Amino acid sequence: MDFSLLRDPSYLKKLSIQEMEKLAGEIRRFLIESVSKTGGHLSSNLGVVELTIVLHYVFNSPIDKIFFDVGHQCYVHKILTGRAPEFAKLRQFNGLSGFQKRCESNHDVWEAGHSSTSLSAALGMAVARDLNHEHYHVVPVIGDGSMSSGMSLEALNQIGDEKRNLIIVFNDNNMSISQNVGALTQGFAKLRSSTGYTTFKTDLKSRLDKNTMGKTVLKSMTKVKDFIKHEVVDSGIFDEFGLEYMGPVDGHDIKSLIQILEVAKKHEGPVVVHVLTKKGKGYPYCENDSEGKWHGVSSFNVQTGSPYHSIPQGHLSWSQIVTEPLVKMAKVDERICAITPAMITGSKLEKFFALYPERSFDCGIAEEHAATFAASLALSGKRPFLCLYSSFLQRAYDQINHDICRMDLPVVIGIDRAGLVGEDGDTHHGVFDISILRSLPNLILSQPKDAYEMQQLLTTAYAQNHPFAIRYPRGAAPYQEYADVQPVEIGTWTVAYEPEKAEMTVLSYGPDVDRLANKFMTNNLPIRVVNARFFKPLDEKMLHQLASENLPVLVYETDMKAGGLSSAVLEWCCDYRCMMNIERIGLDDCFVSQGSINQLRIQQQTQ
Amino acid sequence: MDFSLLRDPSYLKKLSIQEMEKLAGEIRRFLIESVSKTGGHLSSNLGVVELTIVLHYVFNSPIDKIFFDVGHQCYVHKILTGRAPEFAKLRQFNGLSGFQKRCESNHDVWEAGHSSTSLSAALGMAVARDLNHEHYHVVPVIGDGSMSSGMSLEALNQIGDEKRNLIIVFNDNNMSISQNVGALTQGFAKLRSSTGYTTFKTDLKSRLDKNTMGKTVLKSMTKVKDFIKHEVVDSGIFDEFGLEYMGPVDGHDIKSLIQILEVAKKHEGPVVVHVLTKKGKGYPYCENDSEGKWHGVSSFNVQTGSPYHSIPQGHLSWSQIVTEPLVKMAKVDERICAITPAMITGSKLEKFFALYPERSFDCGIAEEHAATFAASLALSGKRPFLCLYSSFLQRAYDQINHDICRMDLPVVIGIDRAGLVGEDGDTHHGVFDISILRSLPNLILSQPKDAYEMQQLLTTAYAQNHPFAIRYPRGAAPYQEYADVQPVEIGTWTVAYEPEKAEMTVLSYGPDVDRLANKFMTNNLPIRVVNARFFKPLDEKMLHQLASENLPVLVYETDMKAGGLSSAVLEWCCDYRCMMNIERIGLDDCFVSQGSINQLRIQQQTQ
Repeated sequence: MDFSLLRDPSYLKKLSIQEMEKLAGEIRRFLIESVSKTGGHLSSNLGVVELTIVLHYVFNSPIDKIFFDVGHQCYVHKILTGRAPEFAKLRQFNGLSGFQKRCESNHDVWEAGHSSTSLSAALGMAVARDLNHEHYHVVPVIGDGSMSSGMSLEALNQIGDEKRNLIIVFNDNNMSISQNVGALTQGFAKLRSSTGYTTFKTDLKSRLDKNTMGKTVLKSMTKVKDFIKHEVVDSGIFDEFGLEYMGPVDGHDIKSLIQILEVAKKHEGPVVVHVLTKKGKGYPYCENDSEGKWHGVSSFNVQTGSPYHSIPQGHLSWSQIVTEPLVKMAKVDERICAITPAMITGSKLEKFFALYPERSFDCGIAEEHAATFAASLALSGKRPFLCLYSSFLQRAYDQINHDICRMDLPVVIGIDRAGLVGEDGDTHHGVFDISILRSLPNLILSQPKDAYEMQQLLTTAYAQNHPFAIRYPRGAAPYQEYADVQPVEIGTWTVAYEPEKAEMTVLSYGPDVDRLANKFMTNNLPIRVVNARFFKPLDEKMLHQLASENLPVLVYETDMKAGGLSSAVLEWCCDYRCMMNIERIGLDDCFVSQGSINQLRIQQQTQ
Repeated sequence: MDFSLLRDPSYLKKLSIQEMEKLAGEIRRFLIESVSKTGGHLSSNLGVVELTIVLHYVFNSPIDKIFFDVGHQCYVHKILTGRAPEFAKLRQFNGLSGFQKRCESNHDVWEAGHSSTSLSAALGMAVARDLNHEHYHVVPVIGDGSMSSGMSLEALNQIGDEKRNLIIVFNDNNMSISQNVGALTQGFAKLRSSTGYTTFKTDLKSRLDKNTMGKTVLKSMTKVKDFIKHEVVDSGIFDEFGLEYMGPVDGHDIKSLIQILEVAKKHEGPVVVHVLTKKGKGYPYCENDSEGKWHGVSSFNVQTGSPYHSIPQGHLSWSQIVTEPLVKMAKVDERICAITPAMITGSKLEKFFALYPERSFDCGIAEEHAATFAASLALSGKRPFLCLYSSFLQRAYDQINHDICRMDLPVVIGIDRAGLVGEDGDTHHGVFDISILRSLPNLILSQPKDAYEMQQLLTTAYAQNHPFAIRYPRGAAPYQEYADVQPVEIGTWTVAYEPEKAEMTVLSYGPDVDRLANKFMTNNLPIRVVNARFFKPLDEKMLHQLASENLPVLVYETDMKAGGLSSAVLEWCCDYRCMMNIERIGLDDCFVSQGSINQLRIQQQTQ
């Protein structure tokens, strides 16, 4: 069909089940075709095609509030709410967001990007609705990975207490980005294989089939438990939180989905509808992916499944630039452990996990616990490498402060995806970490300009006994393995380019250092480039020298200016009564949207 | 007994049950007597007297790792590990900490102050032990309030997966600081009343009694479940996390405690020992306290239970200075809701909760969920007041960033206990919030100098549509109710004292503003005092004026200097190319210890 004619989910209401099944197939083809050109989140969207169609069939968006945890699985929702024509610019500068965005559509009632906010959001909506004496359904859709995160469990604890009408659609594909971990996974598996709903299906179907989707019969039902409770042996964790449970139901069976959600609609109080989906359904490369390589993809060839863009020869992703030497160091130093909150693939820890399984820990989507667990390992003599995306490190701020830094424990924190990350947009840019970490006592905060310096900093981190954070950006850089890398002196900067007679100094960090140095050298500009590889502590000796020269200093930063490197330098000048003529380039006081990193830097005037 | 003779818990090993019971009584008297003089945490410690004695009887600290979640219930542990003589200086400057501190004793194997870190810590210790092929017990003691927090549940999820030997002592008094909330509380209540352990007791006791504490018989036991599992009907939430469960046991019955912990010692894998205790046991004022007024106390009269220090006539605590006007505003504006993570009493929200129960939400110890729940209420047209202690707000940093600020939602955040808090020490000082919040786009960040300005700022916050944080310190200030308070212009500062001919300007905030103004006025000093009541946005007009005068400016801050107000002013001067001769006073790059706020300010040279 021509998806550009799809303006509104009301279109769905007139479809038969067969027509919806046909639509599902067409949406799948559209998704694969479209994402193969733009890149984006594929597997999770392929998994929820039928589910999203049925949600929009059974409920009346935007009066009823349908929304998705994290939100990368909202593409079908976007198609059904009239945004198919914009998929050509998915995740691009000024284009369609890969997540829910209120400014795009009134069908997007919540926004996220980080995991496990949907249940708290749902409770807020339900409470507001009840206070206003309004009547509509609140329908968060949440995956099993997000469900096990502490924040979701905190929300369930209050949801079970408040007893508001709330239909939690539990989208269980037994994966988050990659395989799920944790004890709750076992419980979910038990539920998955329970026969409760099968009985229910057999029992009710005959009656329901006599009516249009069973609506007439269902009118008289008020409580799910009248029909289900006694047939379900054990509703697991949800029972503990005082929630009614329905399911499991086949998430690709439109008829069953309609039936169960129609029953859920009649229920008083919070109910969990357990929907089993297959991540990547309908595209074999995705279906067979257990490592999460098809979770978020760049453009690819539909037939072969091969990406069009790959990392250039001799380059590695920054994630790998840190884990490659880490793997080698861990061979010699058995105290080294690796900890990740559900990001083995994203953080390129596969090799570490394969070689040292007993020292490798995937904590699930649980940044808070992961950080304190790392603290405790360090306190017990281990040397953990705690790997966090900058944007998700925000979840562990208190644990880094209260546990790691306050107790001055030698945890090495790898801050992945630091700086602008591009297409994932405002929820994912890792631009706050310098500002929030710089005030933490005991912490050393650094960023290497290249792969060699990464190896130096990693060696430095493991040669000392304090919390030591190393940030590194998204993207790739030339890599080679160096032998006998020696630690550097903590808090020392280097001069990356010294012109014959400098008339100005640029302080920068990360890959920009060499980029600027090469530019100035090529153009023979009298601008010195300093590699400010430590944000904390600063290189006081070099600062004194710069101050004594009385030349202008430009702090070129690619993160939030407020509280960043320039702020640190200004504070130092103030405390040491050193006059310095400082200008700065960096991110202003606003959330940065999506686009290529290059486009965003031009927009933010940091290019 | 003379507690100063108690040097080591090995002393306990020789005692009979009767002698331990006698000791428990003596410890209780010591605690009440001692805390009545120094102030401190009383109720929670009275509740764990027998439990702590038995833990040190059954296990061998410090080889076995016994530690307490949060840690304010570690006084008995401190007494038993030789620190009774230091109780005269409990929580005082250079005195004994009210929490576990590794520097005090090798029996303090973990430190905290914030809730729910103990299970993550325990797993770290157990993993390190196993990697080292060592053999000792890891025994975290955690209350039911802390157990329901997201971070604990994240830890349980991995603990159930890792299956390490770990004895989780679940100290269930059905309270955190005040009454517990949340659906899990119901589950705990069900466990509490289960008869599982009763059967176990009857069954095993006869056999155990024949031996010295049953040790010989128990030697042959390897699995708890051989003895218990089938007799316990439902072990609730713990079962979902794959943990073995034992209990409940009377936490004041020494014999039963010994029996159950001896069995737990033999168990392979993680086990939860459910211990029922009575908070405040043995001191009627504490026992009858359901609101948590006896959780943390200042010095008091043991006979009457009356505190020796009370808030002066005409003064209110700062917590109340914000909630009094809030209660009045909520009467007119029905959109106003109050949200607290388990701090109704601490944040003085009792009146709000009593008057507007349907708009009052205690989320339990769940700062993350609380912040996103508030965001969602705001998105749904409500005007939530989210009340967080500064130090605990750290847990919600990501939610304030990603949900509240990124979506630009009108949540009013009351940041209680901002600045140095005194006796609770390094884990509780609220000195980081300015540094971490100042880089957040859309957020307005403020602090009033007095009760009148609090009413102005609160009015201002509710007259606009962006996230608006108001911080206020621990302690009290003069209060009166003002009629017709008008909003102020956002980002405007005021001059609190203008001398005839100013030779210098001091920028300050909070109660220091009037203190300094009065001091300078009284001594006729030519120093202007500016009330920098907004940290973000800054008063640019006034800054331009100050810059044009060319007089020295002293930024007098009482929080971390790194990233604080002075940092903001320095950045502004840099961006606007304004020269200003700035000096600053504030907290240096270290964690501040305990003592009276005054002592700490003198130590930190901020007095």
